Amino acid sequence: MSVIRNQLTPADWVAAATHVLRDQSIDAVRVDVLAKVLNVTRGSFYWHFKDRQDLLERMLTGWRDAATEQIIHRFEKSGATPQMLIKELLLLPFRGQSAQNSAAIELAIREWARRDDLARQALEQVDAQRLAYVTRCFEALGFSAAEAKQRAFMLYGYMLSESLLRTQGTPEECQARRQFVEHTLLQPSAQAPQTSA
Amino acid sequence: MSVIRNQLTPADWVAAATHVLRDQSIDAVRVDVLAKVLNVTRGSFYWHFKDRQDLLERMLTGWRDAATEQIIHRFEKSGATPQMLIKELLLLPFRGQSAQNSAAIELAIREWARRDDLARQALEQVDAQRLAYVTRCFEALGFSAAEAKQRAFMLYGYMLSESLLRTQGTPEECQARRQFVEHTLLQPSAQAPQTSA
Repeated sequence: MSVIRNQLTPADWVAAATHVLRDQSIDAVRVDVLAKVLNVTRGSFYWHFKDRQDLLERMLTGWRDAATEQIIHRFEKSGATPQMLIKELLLLPFRGQSAQNSAAIELAIREWARRDDLARQALEQVDAQRLAYVTRCFEALGFSAAEAKQRAFMLYGYMLSESLLRTQGTPEECQARRQFVEHTLLQPSAQAPQTSA
Repeated sequence: MSVIRNQLTPADWVAAATHVLRDQSIDAVRVDVLAKVLNVTRGSFYWHFKDRQDLLERMLTGWRDAATEQIIHRFEKSGATPQMLIKELLLLPFRGQSAQNSAAIELAIREWARRDDLARQALEQVDAQRLAYVTRCFEALGFSAAEAKQRAFMLYGYMLSESLLRTQGTPEECQARRQFVEHTLLQPSAQAPQTSA
């Protein structure tokens, strides 16, 4: 970081904490550890945060807002058809280093959420918002509300599993299964039980 | 546990360790913690295990073998058609308390695998074996090897996401999306890019 020590902002602490969360776990996110990483005194933490819990809450709020912001930005992007939006979503897990970094942070938050109510709430909100967004894309393609929801769940589940199962399959197989998911979820299913009744 | 203290077996230690892993994390799996849980001396641990690493390795081997055993047993179960096997797999995430317990242990192992090579190897083996098993089911239904692999990935991804997104959707919606996945993955896709060429 190119900041002068006494110019550290709360965002710097949150970034350092997120880094430690990603590479270790939430238990390792401690004021003394972060002060060492940032090369400042422990005491300077309290200029910005009431206590460790305050930091953890701001980490979660920041992550949740960024995830929401991203969704809204994407949805309102001018000129993109629902098909294009869905195809773009399916490409997200393969967007190189930055996608891998986001995925690693998110897995660490899922891990944290297993043991912490606040993290669980933030994660559930983000999952729900993303599912609602993908559902809107499928609705815009003409699928019924119920079926759009089901397709959205399958798509989102596929995205999660690409991040969990990164080492399964060659790059060519990953590419082929992404195309298969795209094809399967974009094509109408006239015989689906939900639409045939 | 109904055992007498001095009759504790290695399996008792592994079970206690798995319990702590599930409810806390691998960092909490320590000899002193387990001795306290089992109400025995720390020293008695070393009758059965060389050190903590020995215990961790046996936990992973036990989990991996159980996961593999389960698969083989299922595949060789007499009289089940591939359709039935796939439908059964899709029902697994909804098999009540025992399914939730297995899912919670598995999420804890995925978490552990982010930071530990041995855990990562065990997990990758189990994921690969399950994917290979589901692929065989789809091949038995007449899908090409490539398409069977893609359908297997979608099915397994759906199962993982039901365990990760447990609170998303009402029980009725969960039921409907499971049926949608079943219908979508079992129906032939004549126009799929992989089969139309």
